[in-house]
Amino acid sequence: MDSINYSQEFKVKIVDIAAGKLIAILNEKEAQELGVSPLDRIEITNPRNKKSVNVVVDITDSIIEDNEIGIFKDVHELLGIKDGAKVIVNPSEKPKSVVFIKKKMKGEKLSQEELTQIVEDIASNKLSEIETTAFISAVYMKGFDLDETVYMTKALIGNGKTLKIQNATVVDKHSIGGTNGRATMIIVPIIAAAGFAIPKTSSRSITSSAGTADAMEVLANVCLSLKKIKSVVEKTGGCITWGGAVELAPADDKIIKIEHPLSLDPEGQVIASVMAKKASVGAKYVVIDLPVGPFVKIKSRDKAEEMALKFIEVGKKLGMKVEVLITNGSEPSGKAFGPALEAKYALEILEGKFFDNLAQKSIELAGALLELTGSVPKEQGFDKALEILESGKALKKFKEILKAQDGTIFSSEQITLATSKKELKSTYSGEINSINVGLLNKIARLAGAPANKKAGVMLNIEQGSKISKGQILFEIYSENKRKLDVAYKFAKNNKVITMKRIILEKFS
Amino acid sequence: MDSINYSQEFKVKIVDIAAGKLIAILNEKEAQELGVSPLDRIEITNPRNKKSVNVVVDITDSIIEDNEIGIFKDVHELLGIKDGAKVIVNPSEKPKSVVFIKKKMKGEKLSQEELTQIVEDIASNKLSEIETTAFISAVYMKGFDLDETVYMTKALIGNGKTLKIQNATVVDKHSIGGTNGRATMIIVPIIAAAGFAIPKTSSRSITSSAGTADAMEVLANVCLSLKKIKSVVEKTGGCITWGGAVELAPADDKIIKIEHPLSLDPEGQVIASVMAKKASVGAKYVVIDLPVGPFVKIKSRDKAEEMALKFIEVGKKLGMKVEVLITNGSEPSGKAFGPALEAKYALEILEGKFFDNLAQKSIELAGALLELTGSVPKEQGFDKALEILESGKALKKFKEILKAQDGTIFSSEQITLATSKKELKSTYSGEINSINVGLLNKIARLAGAPANKKAGVMLNIEQGSKISKGQILFEIYSENKRKLDVAYKFAKNNKVITMKRIILEKFS
Repeated sequence: MDSINYSQEFKVKIVDIAAGKLIAILNEKEAQELGVSPLDRIEITNPRNKKSVNVVVDITDSIIEDNEIGIFKDVHELLGIKDGAKVIVNPSEKPKSVVFIKKKMKGEKLSQEELTQIVEDIASNKLSEIETTAFISAVYMKGFDLDETVYMTKALIGNGKTLKIQNATVVDKHSIGGTNGRATMIIVPIIAAAGFAIPKTSSRSITSSAGTADAMEVLANVCLSLKKIKSVVEKTGGCITWGGAVELAPADDKIIKIEHPLSLDPEGQVIASVMAKKASVGAKYVVIDLPVGPFVKIKSRDKAEEMALKFIEVGKKLGMKVEVLITNGSEPSGKAFGPALEAKYALEILEGKFFDNLAQKSIELAGALLELTGSVPKEQGFDKALEILESGKALKKFKEILKAQDGTIFSSEQITLATSKKELKSTYSGEINSINVGLLNKIARLAGAPANKKAGVMLNIEQGSKISKGQILFEIYSENKRKLDVAYKFAKNNKVITMKRIILEKFS
Repeated sequence: MDSINYSQEFKVKIVDIAAGKLIAILNEKEAQELGVSPLDRIEITNPRNKKSVNVVVDITDSIIEDNEIGIFKDVHELLGIKDGAKVIVNPSEKPKSVVFIKKKMKGEKLSQEELTQIVEDIASNKLSEIETTAFISAVYMKGFDLDETVYMTKALIGNGKTLKIQNATVVDKHSIGGTNGRATMIIVPIIAAAGFAIPKTSSRSITSSAGTADAMEVLANVCLSLKKIKSVVEKTGGCITWGGAVELAPADDKIIKIEHPLSLDPEGQVIASVMAKKASVGAKYVVIDLPVGPFVKIKSRDKAEEMALKFIEVGKKLGMKVEVLITNGSEPSGKAFGPALEAKYALEILEGKFFDNLAQKSIELAGALLELTGSVPKEQGFDKALEILESGKALKKFKEILKAQDGTIFSSEQITLATSKKELKSTYSGEINSINVGLLNKIARLAGAPANKKAGVMLNIEQGSKISKGQILFEIYSENKRKLDVAYKFAKNNKVITMKRIILEKFS
């Protein structure tokens, strides 16, 4: 019905903001003339180069004059137009995917074609934040069945770029809602040293003290192009890079941004998001680590088992062999919180300085991955992975990878930490029952992590440690006095650690 | 957990846009330092006047320097601050209502307190568009039960301003997803002439050729303050104003804006929205007109009946007597489309120039309202309303109302229409079976309505008319040649009218 329209000419006023949204601003009178309401769409054409872009209309009662159209930096770049130039504006139709979103809201099942269209329209900013939110809300409330999860995975793969590693079996690992610690920095060199290709893309932290990409960045460059990743992996067998720097799943990045404010994480979408990233790097064998515990994302074993089966099924449909490992997420993995502290800690394990629960977890996961590929017989993966670590082969491989990623630091001793620190001492004696990872992350963030790489928290104890009153529980590192004080005060006022108690409840 | 924070000082850069959203822009580095992600919240304080405002963070990689914060016009006005001045920024917590939205998404029932909080946070811009969309999506997908509908209604009433008319019984009417035609302009003067107070607030058009407020504006001022409405109604018994000019339901206006792009209209929300507006003007007796037909919002009689019962129940809980009238919405009410044409048409009915289906509908509705109040015995409402119309009392009352609303036009002959027009002629002979109101609205909009008040469409025929080939079906009015051509072309290419056919389907 909207196919016939009249064009109208406007003068461009560039609003110097990159908002990541395709928005144009009209004044109220002009919007009414065009017959568009706020959040309706218009097509703007640059008559000089014939470039067109579809944008959402925002309406203002000031600043934008009659015959003027305000456009954000993103739009102006797409059109290749200057301030004051003329553009042609037409009311335009809603993207087709709006109908499919409505369909999902009504509880109907979506087809491959429909999900592909939605993903394309999200990636190209054709869907507004409101429409994308409605979609995520619908997936959260109505769910994806197995078919839809597979369709969504394929849609995400098809929309992004893909990595093609030559002459190697590509494998990968992924942890969901983790327990901190940088197992990836230990697993990747072990697997690469075993002869596989493991092109690992990692995230930066959103709510924790550091993501793997933040910690790796202490040692080397993590903003690699797809071409560079290919060359690093074909040379060394492994890499650890920031996923945000490559466009493996542009729609997914936008979806995650929308999910964040309401902590929406529809299971089907989480599975599709993870599996698409693994497929995009060409992985054939994948282990998924699902930590279960009171302070991590997945609280119950039942929930984890249910999710595990879906991961495996989706993997099958994509021709990937997937093994899901439900892991003990009730205590922190390792003792470091903050990019430099975590990088140093992982390097020390590779250097053979100690062996703790983070080393244990890394070896178990690497072993499982080796067994999954069939290159190592069942029950022998752990020993094989341990041998690679203890022989120093993993450390050697990690240094190769660091070098290929333009690394500047190759030993734990080269890493510098914040010079100011404060110790938090125990006010009790006894045995440690639990350590709240969420609170430790918060303290590390208050101290400046992950933006300040040298800031963070270092634990001096672990679950089950016997401690006396006055003993140091953890140290807070910060380069900013004020932040250090705030973090310390917060640590004192919150129950980071609980002690073991025999009397659980009293009645009288 | 977020209660302790450190403050950071920023220099204000005012971005000269009124976006109707409370947004601040930080560069990536500063956002990371503060530990906020896009769409997180911060609190900005003006240290000079101690004014604070909570805003959502947008992040840019350009324009905003280190130590700088970009704020939109709305935020800068709330803070009373100048470009370049210093502000204090703290990360801040999500509004409480985010938890309640999540609860609704999970299908749980919301309490009065929870819905009140949501409505307050929407009205005060504390909830972002994403969060408000998630809420509307949840209501659409999970529904409101009767209690929740009542809670939502009360929340909307409590959040907005209210009108208190002295010494009169206040009544009101409302049409849902109508059939055009300006019944309100006929009903209001009849009811006011019968001695009741009817403070009618109307909408402007979003998708049709004119809203009641657009048509009334041809004759008088419709942007009245609450104080002015009170004085007009206490003097004359009635008014017809634009609801957007008074803050009777500020949250509702924002909700409707979000509902528009996806055409979401959760039933419970529609009922709460209508009933809150009626309660806010102090109405004790209300008739609700629910047109049912192929070209209007409600397509089935069953759906209308179900909705009718809910309106009545909600009315009871609010101490209002509500009667729902399911009306025949299968044909246009009257023949005019466009503000001036519709105003002229309604005035001509009041002037006694003709009596058609719009007059019939207006009299039936006015009669039902009179019976509902008990002032007129059952079965006598129609006659009473007709008497008020035919005696000229309604016209006299309408002129009084126009005068009180600073009217400039008091007779149908004073109304000027667009001078350019084109006639659309029939290519068939026979009897008219249906007239597509949606397409006529579209044609009127293409011709320039409602922004151009003189533009629109005037029907020459009605459902059931016997016509010959070449006879004029309707005339398109426009003040702009190009728009007239586009509207005419669209009219020729679309099936606005269907003819009666005996053979419905052919098999062979």
